[in-house]
Amino acid sequence: MSSTFAGLALRLSIFGQSHSEAIGMTLDGLPAGLPIDLDKLQGFLNRRAPGQNDWSTPRKEEDRPEFLCGLKDGYTCGAPLTAIIHNNNTRPRDYSRLKITPRPGHADYTAEVKYGGFQDYSGGGHFSGRLTAPLCIAGGVLKQMLESKGITVDARIAAIAGIRDDSPFTASVADKRFPVVDDAVGEQMREAIQAARAEGDSVGGVIECVARGLPVGIGEPMFDGVENQIARTVFAVPAVKGLEFGAGFAAANMRGSGNNDPFTVKDGRIETLTNNAGGILGGISNGMPVVFRAAVKPTPSIAKEQQSVNLNTMRPEALSITGRHDPCIVPRAVPVIEAAAALAISDLILGESKWN
Amino acid sequence: MSSTFAGLALRLSIFGQSHSEAIGMTLDGLPAGLPIDLDKLQGFLNRRAPGQNDWSTPRKEEDRPEFLCGLKDGYTCGAPLTAIIHNNNTRPRDYSRLKITPRPGHADYTAEVKYGGFQDYSGGGHFSGRLTAPLCIAGGVLKQMLESKGITVDARIAAIAGIRDDSPFTASVADKRFPVVDDAVGEQMREAIQAARAEGDSVGGVIECVARGLPVGIGEPMFDGVENQIARTVFAVPAVKGLEFGAGFAAANMRGSGNNDPFTVKDGRIETLTNNAGGILGGISNGMPVVFRAAVKPTPSIAKEQQSVNLNTMRPEALSITGRHDPCIVPRAVPVIEAAAALAISDLILGESKWN
Amino acid sequence: MSSTFAGLALRLSIFGQSHSEAIGMTLDGLPAGLPIDLDKLQGFLNRRAPGQNDWSTPRKEEDRPEFLCGLKDGYTCGAPLTAIIHNNNTRPRDYSRLKITPRPGHADYTAEVKYGGFQDYSGGGHFSGRLTAPLCIAGGVLKQMLESKGITVDARIAAIAGIRDDSPFTASVADKRFPVVDDAVGEQMREAIQAARAEGDSVGGVIECVARGLPVGIGEPMFDGVENQIARTVFAVPAVKGLEFGAGFAAANMRGSGNNDPFTVKDGRIETLTNNAGGILGGISNGMPVVFRAAVKPTPSIAKEQQSVNLNTMRPEALSITGRHDPCIVPRAVPVIEAAAALAISDLILGESKWN
Amino acid sequence: MSSTFAGLALRLSIFGQSHSEAIGMTLDGLPAGLPIDLDKLQGFLNRRAPGQNDWSTPRKEEDRPEFLCGLKDGYTCGAPLTAIIHNNNTRPRDYSRLKITPRPGHADYTAEVKYGGFQDYSGGGHFSGRLTAPLCIAGGVLKQMLESKGITVDARIAAIAGIRDDSPFTASVADKRFPVVDDAVGEQMREAIQAARAEGDSVGGVIECVARGLPVGIGEPMFDGVENQIARTVFAVPAVKGLEFGAGFAAANMRGSGNNDPFTVKDGRIETLTNNAGGILGGISNGMPVVFRAAVKPTPSIAKEQQSVNLNTMRPEALSITGRHDPCIVPRAVPVIEAAAALAISDLILGESKWN
Repeated sequence: MSSTFAGLALRLSIFGQSHSEAIGMTLDGLPAGLPIDLDKLQGFLNRRAPGQNDWSTPRKEEDRPEFLCGLKDGYTCGAPLTAIIHNNNTRPRDYSRLKITPRPGHADYTAEVKYGGFQDYSGGGHFSGRLTAPLCIAGGVLKQMLESKGITVDARIAAIAGIRDDSPFTASVADKRFPVVDDAVGEQMREAIQAARAEGDSVGGVIECVARGLPVGIGEPMFDGVENQIARTVFAVPAVKGLEFGAGFAAANMRGSGNNDPFTVKDGRIETLTNNAGGILGGISNGMPVVFRAAVKPTPSIAKEQQSVNLNTMRPEALSITGRHDPCIVPRAVPVIEAAAALAISDLILGESKWN
Repeated sequence: MSSTFAGLALRLSIFGQSHSEAIGMTLDGLPAGLPIDLDKLQGFLNRRAPGQNDWSTPRKEEDRPEFLCGLKDGYTCGAPLTAIIHNNNTRPRDYSRLKITPRPGHADYTAEVKYGGFQDYSGGGHFSGRLTAPLCIAGGVLKQMLESKGITVDARIAAIAGIRDDSPFTASVADKRFPVVDDAVGEQMREAIQAARAEGDSVGGVIECVARGLPVGIGEPMFDGVENQIARTVFAVPAVKGLEFGAGFAAANMRGSGNNDPFTVKDGRIETLTNNAGGILGGISNGMPVVFRAAVKPTPSIAKEQQSVNLNTMRPEALSITGRHDPCIVPRAVPVIEAAAALAISDLILGESKWN
Repeated sequence: MSSTFAGLALRLSIFGQSHSEAIGMTLDGLPAGLPIDLDKLQGFLNRRAPGQNDWSTPRKEEDRPEFLCGLKDGYTCGAPLTAIIHNNNTRPRDYSRLKITPRPGHADYTAEVKYGGFQDYSGGGHFSGRLTAPLCIAGGVLKQMLESKGITVDARIAAIAGIRDDSPFTASVADKRFPVVDDAVGEQMREAIQAARAEGDSVGGVIECVARGLPVGIGEPMFDGVENQIARTVFAVPAVKGLEFGAGFAAANMRGSGNNDPFTVKDGRIETLTNNAGGILGGISNGMPVVFRAAVKPTPSIAKEQQSVNLNTMRPEALSITGRHDPCIVPRAVPVIEAAAALAISDLILGESKWN
Repeated sequence: MSSTFAGLALRLSIFGQSHSEAIGMTLDGLPAGLPIDLDKLQGFLNRRAPGQNDWSTPRKEEDRPEFLCGLKDGYTCGAPLTAIIHNNNTRPRDYSRLKITPRPGHADYTAEVKYGGFQDYSGGGHFSGRLTAPLCIAGGVLKQMLESKGITVDARIAAIAGIRDDSPFTASVADKRFPVVDDAVGEQMREAIQAARAEGDSVGGVIECVARGLPVGIGEPMFDGVENQIARTVFAVPAVKGLEFGAGFAAANMRGSGNNDPFTVKDGRIETLTNNAGGILGGISNGMPVVFRAAVKPTPSIAKEQQSVNLNTMRPEALSITGRHDPCIVPRAVPVIEAAAALAISDLILGESKWN
């Protein structure tokens, strides 16, 4: 029990290991009759795919999902939707050292203990960032569903290596190869990535996500609020170590008079003059954009020598990680965060009982 | 579906409104045979109770739980544990204005829409901070359970109104009336609270929580990792708007070589030299303390005049909130965060399958 | 985890032991704005209450629920609904022998092992039939909800002690003290009950339940079909050992040509000429009445001497159960079965996503 | 939400339609380190496969699962286990008539309404009996897991077309082509099947299942008892319309003195002299064999002309079903019932918290 999201209305099962025959997902609970634009979905998946630019790993994967079921003539048919991606491009390598000498910052050690030595450590196994591809299949489908109701979910790079893009995030940057609002700041970020790469190191960053168009009243009190749900899916993305909504941690430094968003009326509907609440009051959407930021840690796989421990000898051992690794996963994680948010929001909306 | 936490092993149902006959909780899934020290539990609840000091509201509530079932001769008996607190101290006031003129920063507006005008708005209803009392009953019981296995969960004030206490958090501050490590810094915080109060305003802060003694291997990949679970329960605490684990948002500014925690051996067991991961790798506990920080927004109820909207006339309307309100809820929220963390951690531990 | 029903939309937590301070229930997920007629609810609960007639135990309990929260001015307010019943009428008796010499047909032995000797064995503890009272509170509320949409759930005695009432079940018998369609057959049943009682013995029976007015399309394939859901709640009623839908076990003896229900059109809507499917095709309601029968075993508490084992000495020991016990619980179980069915059906209807 | 079993410890997602690219399942929550004998699993699947004998449809499917992930070197690795079966043998046929003229006894009509005309009606779509193949993959794996702890799950034909085999069920009949204890009675059953086939008709039957070796104390009170869990999975098998445990419906005709199972001591452990409870007291296993029977309706697909309705014209229409159909699915359903029971029992055992 772990890799299955059992939400209010949706159940998403994600499966696969980095080097298993295939990875994939089953999404159960989709309404029937949704048209799925597979080309558009592929475009979304391509935003996550590696190998397309200078700051990401050169490994070339197709990430072309094969739909096994759940569709009929291009529409969801009410049955579970399953798609898989075959792992064709796995090079035969020897990963057995990861079992003995776990990589710092990875799940090698914890999985070794948890699974009693039986885990599939090759390429990170089930903990590989590659498993975000099936999450993106689900998220891409759900984004199309949400868009059919006028709900959009867009993310962007807000910071990398401490370089912040504080520009207002008013329009999607999905069509940019480097999804940042201010391209000049983006250029600095890319330089910081290259500098880290040159030193065999890596950098992290912050991704901001905005969901617009949610009706007022989505989200349940306490354990199933909008924040809880988004946290549940966003922390499923490897490398995310922090999450804040609206003003977030900055709110902790504010006074109530500054943090409270005054109500107003605009075009006949209630709005707030500011959005420090990130569109959420009492766990429930208030009609303003839902805004959150996720902190992404620097890629743990680095060429620089690191200290580990040999689990057989229980003695310290130096470790240098070779192979293909992104010096910064933040750009590729942008659509993944959108997918996670789309999952949380879709589940809340579909799970909303409509008795009357 | 909302106020019931349906975890891997535990199901916690929290019920009540600020001014209903009673509030309470049912905790289902506790092992049988746990001794529950009710005096110790009361001591824990008293840390949350209002009216005991200068920075909190003078309303004097007993918060003395009445256990209806689930115990036999002081031990859990395997049946669900239910405890209630009667709402004796509710003053007959007229809250009907909240229905028409929602308070900024509160759930008045969103609940009005969500529940079609039928919600119990008196005193915030089900969204009142008072509902953290039953969460603390559950958390206090679970803390005792965890302690019987050597697992401790301790929280402290890390910041208020931007004043930070960066002292290392090595020992519980539960017996302090103002739960901060550095009392001198605490004094500054209290002054900031008084300053805000004097201006009819409020302040927020940050709470840090540390769980020690977790075995290696707790937490499931993806949707049920330690981060996901803690997020699910901590965001159930009203006013929490941000959450970070280990280095958290600071990790976004670090390089991989600095953020990765090197493995080492100490006293024959694996540890890490630093703990930027907050004790969690791949969603799974690694044996180091689990460390997180929650951002708490300033109390939304302030005496200062604010702008709202009259939902009947749909015209802006000024609002001044009278009555008893904490200018800063952070000190009282400290045990609540412990309770939320204890819930998440207990559920993960109890939910861990032990096949072999 | 056990006494909490976590359905598609509803979460029902049932708590209490036979001799605990109180028993009760929390129902989470109800729509806001439902009017609850408490007198009508009491009338429903009275159908289950003991002490009112010759075939049931003379113990007089009030079973008058105290609502702690979830209602405002007679309407559900969206917050969880909690009601309790205080156990005032528990006689101080010594039940400790049940711990050492378990009663055949009861949970004494299995609970003793499961809970490691910590269970509350007094009066059957959490396994007492008394715990069907809170189920009836939930069911009574949900029946009112369903009735507001034209959906009725009615049960009747179909057989007792092998005496069958095969009369068509076309109208509610809820107002009868002995809820049978054919009163003459009912008289024979009552004689059979008295005969068993006279011999210190007990009898079982069959309850039939019919839900009318369900829209077509309720129920999910495989694990959440109408049959699965009803089974999940009906087998929560102690003493139920069998369940069948429509023709049920008789269908096993039929041919397909006789069992298949031919489709027809009546008043412009699709119906079936027969209803061997019990209103369910592929787990989904087809618009015909949902019909099921539950087999209720004879009351295990009997005055006749039985063989048990002394768990201390591990030697056989004769046991005679004294005290107040129904020689037949079937009549009082009739509203309980209605409650269980109402829970299952309400959850399916509320859980139905309404995307379009 | 539907085709995903979200149990206490296991989550099983079943996907596919009769004529989709593939069908399959993902099983999440398996312990790591279980050896999976794929040949043995294939042997189990072959018991369900069609086309192998005279009483079943001649369609020849391989039902050879392709494992995509979750295994490493023949052992479960802790990650979700996914297996698929490609639908190679689907003949290009025109099923569109099923959409307009639904087959009696099938889900054609209810699915058409539920999914708003978007369901995949070809070959029954997601409601096809073919979807029991992935359930058998999961069940076959879980049976191996249970066997490693000495727990066996065996089913047999107890009746077909009213012809009953009342022989004691003491040993597995899994290696028989026609899984009945008394082969002479089995021969009569086969004749009854052939007689029905000759008339273009079908017959139903009863399957009995026995699980031996469960420890005492498995199962939770009320909603997660052994009966509830088995009901939840067994009613997921198409065509099952009844379920009874131990004496079941016969208990309704018994007296308490006859139905109560007297306790005794055998070889130093508690047993009962009879097993009318079917190994379950209070929802909890008592150490005796868990025994249940499932009523299987006659195959709804029959060659005989039946009455349906044309949904376009809303006029009655005669329907004759052509193609390959079992005149009796009971023999092939025997391993499916074992699979369903293995799922329920495995989940209860894995979900049992082991705090002490």
